[in-house]
Formats: sequence, C-alpha cells, structure tokens
Amino acid sequence: MRIHILTTGGTIEKVYSEQSGNVENVVARINQYVERLRLPDTQIDVMQLMNKDSLEMTDDDRQKILDAVLARLPDSPVVITHGTDTMVDTGRLLKDRLLKSGLAHPVILTGAMTPLGFERSDGLQNLTESLFAARTLPPGVWIVLHNQAFDVDHVRKDRALARFVAVE
Amino acid sequence: MRIHILTTGGTIEKVYSEQSGNVENVVARINQYVERLRLPDTQIDVMQLMNKDSLEMTDDDRQKILDAVLARLPDSPVVITHGTDTMVDTGRLLKDRLLKSGLAHPVILTGAMTPLGFERSDGLQNLTESLFAARTLPPGVWIVLHNQAFDVDHVRKDRALARFVAVE
Amino acid sequence: MRIHILTTGGTIEKVYSEQSGNVENVVARINQYVERLRLPDTQIDVMQLMNKDSLEMTDDDRQKILDAVLARLPDSPVVITHGTDTMVDTGRLLKDRLLKSGLAHPVILTGAMTPLGFERSDGLQNLTESLFAARTLPPGVWIVLHNQAFDVDHVRKDRALARFVAVE
Amino acid sequence: MRIHILTTGGTIEKVYSEQSGNVENVVARINQYVERLRLPDTQIDVMQLMNKDSLEMTDDDRQKILDAVLARLPDSPVVITHGTDTMVDTGRLLKDRLLKSGLAHPVILTGAMTPLGFERSDGLQNLTESLFAARTLPPGVWIVLHNQAFDVDHVRKDRALARFVAVE
Repeated sequence: MRIHILTTGGTIEKVYSEQSGNVENVVARINQYVERLRLPDTQIDVMQLMNKDSLEMTDDDRQKILDAVLARLPDSPVVITHGTDTMVDTGRLLKDRLLKSGLAHPVILTGAMTPLGFERSDGLQNLTESLFAARTLPPGVWIVLHNQAFDVDHVRKDRALARFVAVE
Repeated sequence: MRIHILTTGGTIEKVYSEQSGNVENVVARINQYVERLRLPDTQIDVMQLMNKDSLEMTDDDRQKILDAVLARLPDSPVVITHGTDTMVDTGRLLKDRLLKSGLAHPVILTGAMTPLGFERSDGLQNLTESLFAARTLPPGVWIVLHNQAFDVDHVRKDRALARFVAVE
Repeated sequence: MRIHILTTGGTIEKVYSEQSGNVENVVARINQYVERLRLPDTQIDVMQLMNKDSLEMTDDDRQKILDAVLARLPDSPVVITHGTDTMVDTGRLLKDRLLKSGLAHPVILTGAMTPLGFERSDGLQNLTESLFAARTLPPGVWIVLHNQAFDVDHVRKDRALARFVAVE
Repeated sequence: MRIHILTTGGTIEKVYSEQSGNVENVVARINQYVERLRLPDTQIDVMQLMNKDSLEMTDDDRQKILDAVLARLPDSPVVITHGTDTMVDTGRLLKDRLLKSGLAHPVILTGAMTPLGFERSDGLQNLTESLFAARTLPPGVWIVLHNQAFDVDHVRKDRALARFVAVE
C-alpha cells in the first residue's frame, strides 16, 4: 500500500528559533516524524510543496496543492499537512475541483495546534490518524485530527478551543 | 461519542522492574497514555479486566472478556488492549460468539511489540489508530496496529518480524 | 541535603500558546521537571518568585531575588532559574552583595536556550547540572549550563551561537 | 576540554528485544544519548570496550578497563558507563591501581537503574551529571549518579531501593 504525503507548513512543522524566540516555518519536519511510526506494509512518499503559515497561502499556492493532488490521486491516497487556520478553505477548493473528475481514493488534510516535538503536541497523533484514515476511509476530502474525521463541507475551526467542530 | 477500552495486559502494559531486571505486567498503564491524546469529542471509559501476558490467558479469562464486550457493545464501540501472542485467538472467539447476536459497533483488538513508554514503542501509535478505528470502521472484529486494520479471520502474528500479516 | 530553587521565568519556563502562536511565560514549570529527576538523598524546595522574560526584569525584581537568596543561603545552596539575556547582570549583582556577608554555599544561576519540553531543549540538562553543581561546587556565584560552570564575573552570553562563553 | 567515555554495557545500555521479550546488552547506545546533550565547549570521545551485564564481568574485563583508563588519564578525565551491580568492585580496583601512579584527572563511574530511553530512566540524568563531574570534581575515582558524587571507597548499592548509599 502506498500513501503520498504533501507538506505545506503550518503549525505542525514550526520550530522554535533560539535567536528570535519565536516559532517559525523554516525546515521540513514531517519526514522525521513519519520515521517514528511502524508502517511495515505501507510505502510513504513525502513531497515538500512549501513551508508556510497557512494565513500566508496564496491562490497560486492552493493551485500548486491541487495540481500535486491531481497527479497522485489516481494511484493512491494523499495526506496533506497544512496550517489549521485555512485548512477548511483549501479542503473545500480541493473537493470542488476533484469531485468533477471523481476521486478514486481519500484525500486527508491534517495539521496540529502545537508543533511536532513540543510538549503536549497533537502533531504525531494527527499524523498517525491521517495515515490510518488514508487506508480505511472511503474516497472523499476529509479533515482528520483529534480522533475525528470531518467532511470538509461540514466543519470549522474553533480557535478559542483549539479544535475543529462539526457544522451543518 | 463514547468508546469503551478493556485492558487485559500484554506487552503494551509491561513495565521494567529495577529489582528483577525484567519487564512485567504489574500496573495498569493504558489510562495514563490515553490522557496524552486529544479527544475533545470522545468520552473514553477504561476498565481493567486483568493484567496478564497473553500466553497465560485461560478460557475463563476469555469468557470474562466476552462478557465485558457483550455488556458494552450495544451502546458503543469497544477497544481491547491485549498481548499479541494470542490476540488472534481471542479475536476469533469474540467474533464467533458476537456474530450470533449481531454487532452494532466495531470491536478492536490492539497491543504492542514494545511496551508503552519504551524507546521506539509502537504502543501509542497502535492505541491512537485503534481509537480512530473505533469511530470509523464498520461493525466487525478487527485487529488494528501498524497502520493496518485486519479482519480477525485473516491475520496471523509473525513473531520473527514482530508484525502481523494478512492470510487467506 | 537540601537545595532551594528560586524560579523567575525566562525561556526555560516558557510554553507555547495555541491561541497566540507564540511562546510565553504563563505558568510555573520547574517543579514538574524536577520531579523527573532521581534525587533520593536531596530535598528540593521550589519557590516561584516571578515568571518574566529576563529583559523585563526591574531593579525591584532583582532586589526580590537578592532578598530570597539571603534568606536561604545560610542553610543550603540556592539554584536560580532565570532568563539568559540578563542572567549575567543578576549574577554580578548577587555576587557583589553576597560577598560582603560571605557565602556559606554556592549560588547557581541557570536557564535554557529552548523551553523545557520542546524538542532539543537544553532545559533539563541545565537543571540536572545545576542541582549537581549545588552539591559539589565551592561557595561562589556560578552560571551553570551546557556542561560548564562559569564564574559570573568572567562570562557573557553569545546570542548568535545560543551559548555562554568565558571572558577575561 | 576533552572527556573520554569508556562504555562497558550494564543496564544503562540495555534494549528491549521484541523477539525474546527481555532486555539485553546488544548494541552500543551511549553515543546516541550524548548527542542529545549540548556540549559546545567539550569534545567527547566514546570508546566501546565491551557490552556486558556487570555480573558477567571477568578479571580480564576489568584489566581491559584499567588499561584503557591508564592510556587516557594523563590527558583528560574519563567517564566509564558500567552495570551497577559490580560498579563498586571495578571502581575500587581502579582506585587501588591508579593511586600508585597518581591521578591527574577525575575518573567517574556511572550507570542506570533503568535503561536509557525507557520511561522514568535515570540514564540521561546520570550521564549528564557524570560529564559535568568530569569537568568539575577533583582527581579521584568517583561514582556519580542521582545528584550525588560518592568516593568509591565509601559507597554500596542498595538493590531493594535501587540506589547507592554512602557507607563509613
């Protein structure tokens, strides 16, 4: 079984800078965490598309994500790691464009509220769930994190609670 | 959403004894690891049934597991943490008995090759996947670990490779 | 053997805020990390004096630290966790005032370049070294971190390299 | 500053075997943990002498340790990682032989009650303390762990309490 991971940045990939004292998107980090998982029957291909805070994503960036998904989806499921602030926007765009051509596999968007490797980070949990979802959920565009799989058309981020909630 | 966890021991719950120098089943450990996961829309109820190496499980022990599952399954999915050596045996017994009454929810068996909290343990990954599977897989008796969901009738443990493999 | 720890904030105690996306001094954290160490023959007393970025420390804050050290030093060594940016300033003030009355025990200042609990944090290493230094170094005012003990009169922070270096 | 580390096995280096279900001395592990420490002004040279449970050490093994220490001690401090069960025996032998020629630097013996990388392991704490002790303690043969530095002639292991205690 093969799963493609496309990385785009967001909180899940941020690191602490000892010079600035802030967290920043500077290096690709998903690969080193995927290596901590046991995946004896899964071939993971990680491709870094960009490394941005999702509030700074442009239309061009989203087109780039769409193109990358379109190139991989006929063969295998795709997991996209993404900032949570605009994850729903990217997901709806993908669903809108992908449904026209029909989805053979699930497309999973995931991310984190606290960066990978920080105390109490939800990043590895969400990555674990998303890779499992990629093998087990039906075709569709899903947001997967915190033990839940949301249809991208029926979910919003609740920033104050640092979680996603289902909506009508 | 509610998920019941039944704990029975096995490698996933073993701890290192500084007096004996061996790993042993002595204290319940699943609860403290569940607390590390973000489960904002999931209510977890953990019940310790026993704390045994699965090679030492008796027919009475398996009856106890079956009774505990039967009592919870009408309401919600059940995750059972279990030693890997006889996980398939327990799973097949459960499937045989549960199918007669019909399953309203999935029953998930999981465990680990290396105890929770040990370097390179697969325990938290498998627990994460199993709790996600409990919400998303169809009714049935499943073995979930290492990014895979196996039908309990078509799986065996490969001890040399420290993994499970699908069989006809 | 008794060791007093006085906490003042700084990077070592910062946490990531999921709402702001920044790291901030909001809760006392030294105690929970001290509990991860084995200290069978050491009694640790932790007292939170303040929780500030050390660039925001005032003269009043430093007086408060001096008073707290003076109250404890006759009995036992004192470890002060402190932001690294002004650690040398506080240390020199302490040395200047304490030498007049004579030091019966060592006073150790320590901190971290990356907060406790973050990937690659030096916080627990520095805390471990400082508690060991408190038992083994001679009386004096020391900055202890990164495997080194510096005389506070002969050290400066190198921000670009994220370390301290000895000076004449 | 240069510090030599000689590794000999013991609990600190044991790993969990998924095939046997026991902890065993099979691979050298000190180096990968030293890399987690910040040592900007310290050059560490790690040499694996053997990888044994210390209850299985022979007179020849101890001679090998003595020879390795003698070869390095004129230049720099030496840290020896060692099983705790016979650490005192090895330490006394070293002290007896080394005192005749005079010690220019400290020799530190350390180990762990629980292997490196296991939950609640004291291994990294003890390694951190020992590397700090190598720079700061006076010449002599010391056992360093759990926030303490023991003269090797006045210490014994208390197996029931999983610690070392000072003796007359």
